[in-house]
Amino acid sequence: MSGGEKPLADAIEAALIPLEHLTVHRDGNVIVARTSLNRSQRVALAGHIDTVPVAGNLPSRVEDGLLHGCGSADMKAGVAVQLKLAATVTAPAMDTTYVFYDCEEVEAERNGLFRLSRTTPELLAADFAILLEPTGGVVEGGCQGSLRAEVRAVGERAHSARSWMGRNAVHEAGRILDLLRRYEPREPEVDGLAFHEGLNAVGISGGVASNVIPDECVVTVNYRFAPDRSADQATEHVRQVFGEWEVTITDLAGGARPGLARPAAASFVAAIGGTPRAKLGWTDVARFDALGIPAVNFGPGNPSLAHTRGEHVALAAIGECEAKMSAWLGRR
Amino acid sequence: MSGGEKPLADAIEAALIPLEHLTVHRDGNVIVARTSLNRSQRVALAGHIDTVPVAGNLPSRVEDGLLHGCGSADMKAGVAVQLKLAATVTAPAMDTTYVFYDCEEVEAERNGLFRLSRTTPELLAADFAILLEPTGGVVEGGCQGSLRAEVRAVGERAHSARSWMGRNAVHEAGRILDLLRRYEPREPEVDGLAFHEGLNAVGISGGVASNVIPDECVVTVNYRFAPDRSADQATEHVRQVFGEWEVTITDLAGGARPGLARPAAASFVAAIGGTPRAKLGWTDVARFDALGIPAVNFGPGNPSLAHTRGEHVALAAIGECEAKMSAWLGRR
Repeated sequence: MSGGEKPLADAIEAALIPLEHLTVHRDGNVIVARTSLNRSQRVALAGHIDTVPVAGNLPSRVEDGLLHGCGSADMKAGVAVQLKLAATVTAPAMDTTYVFYDCEEVEAERNGLFRLSRTTPELLAADFAILLEPTGGVVEGGCQGSLRAEVRAVGERAHSARSWMGRNAVHEAGRILDLLRRYEPREPEVDGLAFHEGLNAVGISGGVASNVIPDECVVTVNYRFAPDRSADQATEHVRQVFGEWEVTITDLAGGARPGLARPAAASFVAAIGGTPRAKLGWTDVARFDALGIPAVNFGPGNPSLAHTRGEHVALAAIGECEAKMSAWLGRR
Repeated sequence: MSGGEKPLADAIEAALIPLEHLTVHRDGNVIVARTSLNRSQRVALAGHIDTVPVAGNLPSRVEDGLLHGCGSADMKAGVAVQLKLAATVTAPAMDTTYVFYDCEEVEAERNGLFRLSRTTPELLAADFAILLEPTGGVVEGGCQGSLRAEVRAVGERAHSARSWMGRNAVHEAGRILDLLRRYEPREPEVDGLAFHEGLNAVGISGGVASNVIPDECVVTVNYRFAPDRSADQATEHVRQVFGEWEVTITDLAGGARPGLARPAAASFVAAIGGTPRAKLGWTDVARFDALGIPAVNFGPGNPSLAHTRGEHVALAAIGECEAKMSAWLGRR
């Protein structure tokens, strides 16, 4: 899906261009639509339009008020809210910037919001930002960082009928997996919210031919780290854990501290209600955080269902989120 | 290489057709050339024309009397001896059948000799067969069997930021690899020759996306078993070893007992000299064995170098093999 967003970006652009209160910008498959009402404050509402790969969960279907399907929770529901607000809240209390971007579910370098934050940060300028990632309808503060690395076991090739002449790199990789099974993740509290780390293999690959002892096996690991640890500290930690093997960092995105005490975030939390909690998944609040823009996550859908075969979202939750956002945005 | 033998088969066919003492048959990329001298005995000399995948060891080169390159030992050298004998031994003491076949380095189902043994076994009919696989210039008796299986670890997908919501199949596969590292192979003596088994991972694969806890990981294992164990017994053993996981047998080829006491084999061993030893790699002696034809392995090249990056063969060894075979074939 990531990388194939053009038809979606085309459709979003076509839907927004007729709206007279919005100025629409396009950059690749990123669409930015802004009001220009000279309000004293500006809020950015952002959502990504890609999903993880389909897992036998398309076509989507509605059943008993639930919308089932790949990406339903992460985050077509949030994007639907964005579109509805863009079309209906024509005179918001704050100037509003709607951001629809591509390639969030893949390596950070391809992320459309990251690209804009480097090339045209003025398009993203705001006093406060909300990512409409699935949060179960409550405000989720900050986010965990994400590091990906390849951990490489090496060996020596031989004919598999004389395996003792070589060294089996796949067998050796078993020691890497043993270490991952034994790993105890941290669960630190940061700015009053409880985070929960994880270090996991997300892929493994090795093998030359079916009669050859393999001389290389690569385990791809993903470290999700709490925002009390910097990207550099996370790198150091992973290198330490896998000290015995060659480690190549392939993707790294720092987290964001919750920072809910900042005025803009606090006012939004007060308006929405509920008890904020930590965002465990990495989201682009970290991107806004890096631009100096306070940001939180708030959107329909259960975050635990994201990236699962059984992904779904309640239609009522989408409506409820839209109603709350609409009331807050429209309020003077 | 396996599957791409057509140009080689074309060249072999073109080289043999002009030879008046041979009748040439072609079946796909298998070439069979036979003398018809009404001798009381017939011997088959067989060799495969494919190699394992290239491993940075092409183009081949000659250095200090050694021919380096992919397939030099396994088994271009033996095939070269076959071709030289076919061209020069015009009136052998025994009728001779030269067999050049494809797809030996891949799953048994694709093996050209296997195909002929089912479709036109009369072309392979002989009183004795010699496979010119690399044996270091001594006679190697019998061969070990080979079984390939996929051992599957399953889990449950989840977003990698909330890994504890899923079950990581790649981590689980670490237990399969632990078992392989701990496995102690048998080294039985069969018909007086010492065999040496092996159970190895030859491949591993798992992973959905870089932010998803994988729900499946497949370890491809290769069991090389001594000929005192039947194909069925080998299957039973592998199912027992991996009893905890789903096992799918993907390829199975039984071995062959040495049987050097049989008259045809004994006479060849006596003519060639040296002390016979066990063939550890699977070869098509098993195929001839299944057709009721006694068969041994005898060819130039060190079998330990087969399937390695540093594969090579001494030019002198090729000449020596050809001289011994030529003397034996020519003798009345």
